[in-house]
Amino acid sequence: MNEPTTLEHLQAVSDSLESGATMQIKYLLNGALPAQDVARLLESSPPRERKLLWGLIDHTNQGEVLPYVSEEISIQFMKSMDTERLLAVSEHFDNDDLADILQQLPETLVKEVLASMTAQNRARMEALLSYSEDSAGGLMNTDTITIRPNITVDIVFRFLRRHSELPEMTDSLLVVSRTDRFLGMLPLTKLLVADADATVRDIMETECDVIYADQDAAEVAQLFEKMDLVSAPVIDPETKKLLGRITIDDVVDVIRDEAEHSMLSMAGLDDDEDTFAPIIQTSKRRAVWLGINLVTAFTASYVIGLFQDTLDKVVALAILMPIVASMGGIAGSQVLTLVIRGIALNQIGNANAKWLLNREIIVGLINGTLWAAVIAALTYMWFGDMQIAYVIAGAIVINLLFAALTGTLLPIALKKLGIDPALAGSVILTTVTDVVGFLSFLGLATIFLI
Amino acid sequence: MNEPTTLEHLQAVSDSLESGATMQIKYLLNGALPAQDVARLLESSPPRERKLLWGLIDHTNQGEVLPYVSEEISIQFMKSMDTERLLAVSEHFDNDDLADILQQLPETLVKEVLASMTAQNRARMEALLSYSEDSAGGLMNTDTITIRPNITVDIVFRFLRRHSELPEMTDSLLVVSRTDRFLGMLPLTKLLVADADATVRDIMETECDVIYADQDAAEVAQLFEKMDLVSAPVIDPETKKLLGRITIDDVVDVIRDEAEHSMLSMAGLDDDEDTFAPIIQTSKRRAVWLGINLVTAFTASYVIGLFQDTLDKVVALAILMPIVASMGGIAGSQVLTLVIRGIALNQIGNANAKWLLNREIIVGLINGTLWAAVIAALTYMWFGDMQIAYVIAGAIVINLLFAALTGTLLPIALKKLGIDPALAGSVILTTVTDVVGFLSFLGLATIFLI
Repeated sequence: MNEPTTLEHLQAVSDSLESGATMQIKYLLNGALPAQDVARLLESSPPRERKLLWGLIDHTNQGEVLPYVSEEISIQFMKSMDTERLLAVSEHFDNDDLADILQQLPETLVKEVLASMTAQNRARMEALLSYSEDSAGGLMNTDTITIRPNITVDIVFRFLRRHSELPEMTDSLLVVSRTDRFLGMLPLTKLLVADADATVRDIMETECDVIYADQDAAEVAQLFEKMDLVSAPVIDPETKKLLGRITIDDVVDVIRDEAEHSMLSMAGLDDDEDTFAPIIQTSKRRAVWLGINLVTAFTASYVIGLFQDTLDKVVALAILMPIVASMGGIAGSQVLTLVIRGIALNQIGNANAKWLLNREIIVGLINGTLWAAVIAALTYMWFGDMQIAYVIAGAIVINLLFAALTGTLLPIALKKLGIDPALAGSVILTTVTDVVGFLSFLGLATIFLI
Repeated sequence: MNEPTTLEHLQAVSDSLESGATMQIKYLLNGALPAQDVARLLESSPPRERKLLWGLIDHTNQGEVLPYVSEEISIQFMKSMDTERLLAVSEHFDNDDLADILQQLPETLVKEVLASMTAQNRARMEALLSYSEDSAGGLMNTDTITIRPNITVDIVFRFLRRHSELPEMTDSLLVVSRTDRFLGMLPLTKLLVADADATVRDIMETECDVIYADQDAAEVAQLFEKMDLVSAPVIDPETKKLLGRITIDDVVDVIRDEAEHSMLSMAGLDDDEDTFAPIIQTSKRRAVWLGINLVTAFTASYVIGLFQDTLDKVVALAILMPIVASMGGIAGSQVLTLVIRGIALNQIGNANAKWLLNREIIVGLINGTLWAAVIAALTYMWFGDMQIAYVIAGAIVINLLFAALTGTLLPIALKKLGIDPALAGSVILTTVTDVVGFLSFLGLATIFLI
């Protein structure tokens, strides 16, 4: 019931913008809609409308909205603010999100923001800034509630009641030693059913999943998914001191980014792609990818050019050759997609890669033979030439085998070389299936038909 | 630190299987590794090893492991069980997950499982079975803790202490009327800092996000993401009675599935694809997709065939024509991927579709012109023929324009028709960019060169 309304609001806002009814929009943007919905509205608006809407949000409300806007867009807005307003809005951010954004703002601005903070907050922020955005340290927040192991449940309750509110997503209290070393966790669900006289040490969990600040964000996400966590403590890998905690809301973003990353990269798009990015920005990004693929396309054409004489003699070959290349491309990208997902899910290692390669080769042979027969039959019906039918059948089998080999081994090899398989994989695969497709088809034709 | 070990364990288990050291594997599978890791191990194993490993897990432990194994694989295991064991393992499942699986088991088995349940549990399970797996009702669990609005905080604490433990992921108590109508929520973080004499009504939150049982799972996921929820109450859309709650761990699965769905569908793969599915199953699934794409390939060939005489006269056309089709395909799939993601994120509606189409047409024109110039220059250098260079430049611009149009409008239209844009989109797009590419290039050539 909630989601469609964002698009409905967008329609309403868009209509109001056209008719100049800014009062209504102002009303919607400044309190009538929750900040999260206003953020969605901004993300779903083209650049000009986005700027207009942003200008209609009161300065005091802009700070509420900004933390929910996607990073790329909020950085744009923040770059245009003076220091004073930047400081005002930055107070609304969680520390981890603010750190991500500060890392992308001009250094002078960052210094001013840091200088305006309390000493304690600045120390925390500087610690966060020292971690990469893609590490556990970059996902971490410092809003933990810590307790000592020797106090009783009754005292814990009294200690909690001294807070006016507990941080959001607090599902556990973290137990630390006097020197801040992490000792264990006390889930609220356990605290609430505990005996008032029991000590924290009696009831705390010590076998819990801890995260080291230098761990990869993707690993953290997999741990949360596997263990169904809501929050987890982050520890300094050297001193074993508690640094903060990671909560599921930040992990959900990582999971979505990871899962989208493969799809977007395979089409040469950026991860943080703004659907409504302006024309120039979009053109530049797309142009690079088209240029890279042009190399592939000309390579394939070069291969065809080698067989100019053959093509000159049998024009049917020119008509049929895209079929061989296209079937190889489709078969290869199925394997590639599956293996890229398997690598992202950490499912594929030395122990099972060989089995996977074997299966793909056999599947390639089975489907190659099946479709080679179908294509040969269709070719014979079309051109009435049995020899061309044999040649195309042979080429299909060869290309589907190469597609299986490349689709399986390429992403595994790229991963080992530290190259993103999703980004480089699809271009290289297409090059292979195009080149092998044209080479095998026109090569076999030159041998058997001419 | 956690994830790499799954692959390491896999290597160790695989080595032990080869050397026949089953005692060690049994030790790992029956307690030494957490159930979640055993599940990952099973998912990352080829069929034969998977079966062997499963057989090495004690019957009592199989029930612990199964809920963490992906649905497709656990259904396979459960289909081979007799009723007694099926009943034993089903006790380990959350109600919502069990309902998903029961929906895919033979009806006689399901009846026996239901008959073995207590009357209360059976009634709940039958209610869950009435909802589709993709609805909020299908995601819901019935393990809520409900309280009345008129009791004091002190009594709430005493009531909670009577439980031996609270359900996992309990972050709120749900406040209901005497007739079970949902009234509000009391977050634990609020309860813990509340005054002992306050009543639940005083401190409960009434402006909370509720979910109706018939809502779409994807909508639920978007609500959780937007509002950073850990759990949310599920309400009967008619009676407004509380039915249960949805927790973030189930939503995380939906988010991953949604995000992966587009990528897998675009390659014609199943959503719940088992990376290590056996050969026959894999071949069948892939064959269907190859067959569909063959229609595209032959359509493109048919178009080329129309220009047989032109090709016969100028062989350079045969060499260059794949470039036009391929550049269109790449440009189109960039747009398609972006729009499919935008639709999945509910960002694209009538209010902004027109702007998007405009932008894509302009971007297509800019990049079309840019790359047309580059390709024309390269063509002239290769063949020394200015006319062919003009013709290919014209065809590139035309095809990139069509790619922009199709990439934007096709997924929006498919969505409106209730067809999955990720599944049908890529095939139709390729057909368009191939056909338009060959038609414009060979057509222009026929007009200007012959």
